[in-house]
Formats: sequence, structure tokens, C-alpha cells
Amino acid sequence: MKLLEDRILSEGKVLPGNILKVGSFLNQQIDTELLAAMADEISHLFARSGVTKIMTVESSGIALAAAAGMAMGVPVVFAKKHKTSNVDGNVYSAQAHSFTHGNDYTMVISRDYLLPDDCILLIDDFLAVGNAVNGMISLVEQAGACLAGAAIAIEKGFQGGGDTLRKSGIRVESLALIDSMTDSGVVFRK
Amino acid sequence: MKLLEDRILSEGKVLPGNILKVGSFLNQQIDTELLAAMADEISHLFARSGVTKIMTVESSGIALAAAAGMAMGVPVVFAKKHKTSNVDGNVYSAQAHSFTHGNDYTMVISRDYLLPDDCILLIDDFLAVGNAVNGMISLVEQAGACLAGAAIAIEKGFQGGGDTLRKSGIRVESLALIDSMTDSGVVFRK
Repeated sequence: MKLLEDRILSEGKVLPGNILKVGSFLNQQIDTELLAAMADEISHLFARSGVTKIMTVESSGIALAAAAGMAMGVPVVFAKKHKTSNVDGNVYSAQAHSFTHGNDYTMVISRDYLLPDDCILLIDDFLAVGNAVNGMISLVEQAGACLAGAAIAIEKGFQGGGDTLRKSGIRVESLALIDSMTDSGVVFRK
Repeated sequence: MKLLEDRILSEGKVLPGNILKVGSFLNQQIDTELLAAMADEISHLFARSGVTKIMTVESSGIALAAAAGMAMGVPVVFAKKHKTSNVDGNVYSAQAHSFTHGNDYTMVISRDYLLPDDCILLIDDFLAVGNAVNGMISLVEQAGACLAGAAIAIEKGFQGGGDTLRKSGIRVESLALIDSMTDSGVVFRK
């Protein structure tokens, strides 16, 4: 998506440790015009996939998930992050590791909001090695729901998570797919 | 806002400790049609207030803030929650207490995203005693920005935070304003 790629080139900052800072338009401050355009693109990409619900994990994917949900006319559910794996109650849960924060966590969602007849589109702001998406896929499988695929704002292609998912047969659509990222610049996959 | 009040009456659950569960349409699962209607209402209410930016605090207000930002055509910024008050760097910070989680935290926002010539609309999902809103007001004041007011999805009027803010001259618009809430039902302010 050229609009997002251009914005990454003009405002993104590459930091040590494969961190791409996009706080000025995507993470800490959201350009809502860009957000709406991204949501429209996701709605277009998955228009024929029978999506009944969007799922994201709190909190940085919430804005894009909500915008895409409005564009597609489907509800949005959030998996919540718990520090401990000690989760009780009527929930599905999955272990995950945060690349950004360097810690493990448990993602949890109520069984009431993920149903066997749902067809789920996963949404997140970043995809690197794929921990958050893999955790959400586990939640979808536990519910016996169908998986339409994953829509990602920015994929760090060089970290491999997206291609591993694609090889396993999962549809992954990234609005910006980065092939390499150094001090001298960001290169997108053609 | 009748649409939201009706939904609270039909799906909200009152739990001990003045907790109102609205997970099925507002918190854990979001009805995006309702979300869009709420965002339109906020846009209408603050149409003439010169709002340049919306601020919320992660994470439960993000979806409504993003939707309202798209409806109003302004960017959205998030204050982030830190467990410790040990915050450094180029930020404004304020102490707050979470009514829901029963803990203290520090809310933090980069100075880059809150400017003296901004006119800020605060958005959150709940207003009870007003801790989150008061923390965000402190951030706005530290930045020397103007405050257009606060737009809240659900105000628990009986906890007093909203009226205290109104008495201090701040415009607070709550889409549903609850006067009392017991096992036998929820009563809205006329």
C-alpha cells in the first residue's frame, strides 16, 4: 500500500534491534485519514472471505481492528494480555512472547466471543517472527472457528514470521512488507 | 444516547463493587455499528469546539477514540500506562489510579504529540471518580494545550467524577449517564 510505504519512508525511524518507530502516525499518534485508508484496503482484500469477526490482541492493533471492523461491518474482539499463565474461567488462552517488550505473556479471550461458526480475520499492527498471530491462531483453533487470514499493517519480512505462516497455507496480507531495514533506509518487497 | 442506553439495559451486567460489564458490545467485543454511531454523536457534540486532536489512555478507550478521530478528521494520541513513576525522556507524565484494576500507574505521553497550539478532546470508555480524565487533563496542562472537553461512553454519575469536572468548568459529554445501578436495574439521568 503506497500511502503507508511512503509514510514509513518519510517518518519511520530505524532503531537498533530491528525496531521501526512509527509513533508519529501509527502507534502513539494515529493519522486517522491513513487509518481509514488502511481499513478500506483490508476490507477490499478480504471482501470475499466470509469474515464474521475481527480479532486483535491489545493494545497496539486495536485502532486498526476497530477501523477495519467498521469498514467491513463486522464486530471486533480483543484477546487480552495476562502476565501469568494462571488463567481461570470460561476462556481460551495461548502463550506468546512479545518481541517489542521482551517478555512472555498469556493471551486470553472469553469463549463467549469466539464461536465455532465464526470466520475470523486477525489484525495486528506489526508482524515479525509471528508470535502474536500464532497465539491468536491457537485461540481460533481452540474455538473451532474458521480462519480467514491475517491483515497486518507492517510486516518485517526479514524476520520470517509472515512467510512461515504463508507456507503453512494461511493468507497473510501486509499493507507494507519490509525486506530490509538499516540505518541507510527501508526497502519494501516488490 | 438512546442506542447506547438501550444496549446497556439489554446486555449490561451489574456486578458487585459498582462494576458494569459491557464486554459483549463495548469492551471485549465491539459492535462496530454502535461504535460508528457513538463516534458520529461525539463528532456532532464537539463540531464547533475547534478540536485539533483526540487523546485517550490505553487501552479500553482506543477504539472509540480512533472512531471519533476518523469521524472528526483529527489525529488521535494515546497516553501509555507505566507501572512505575520512574519515567524519563521527552515526555509529560501524570499519576493516576485505576478504579477497575485497583492499582496506581503513571500515564505518559511524548512531548512531540501534545503541542501548545493543540485543542484536545479527551475520550474514554468509562468515567467514574475521574482519575483517568484528571490525569489526561494534567498532561494537557503540562503541554500548555487547550482543552475542548471530555467525551465519555458511559459515566457512572453516582460516583461523582463527572459532576466535579463540570463544576470546575470542563465540558463533559457522556453518551450514557448512569444515576444509579443495582441488581434490579440501571437508571439513567434524565
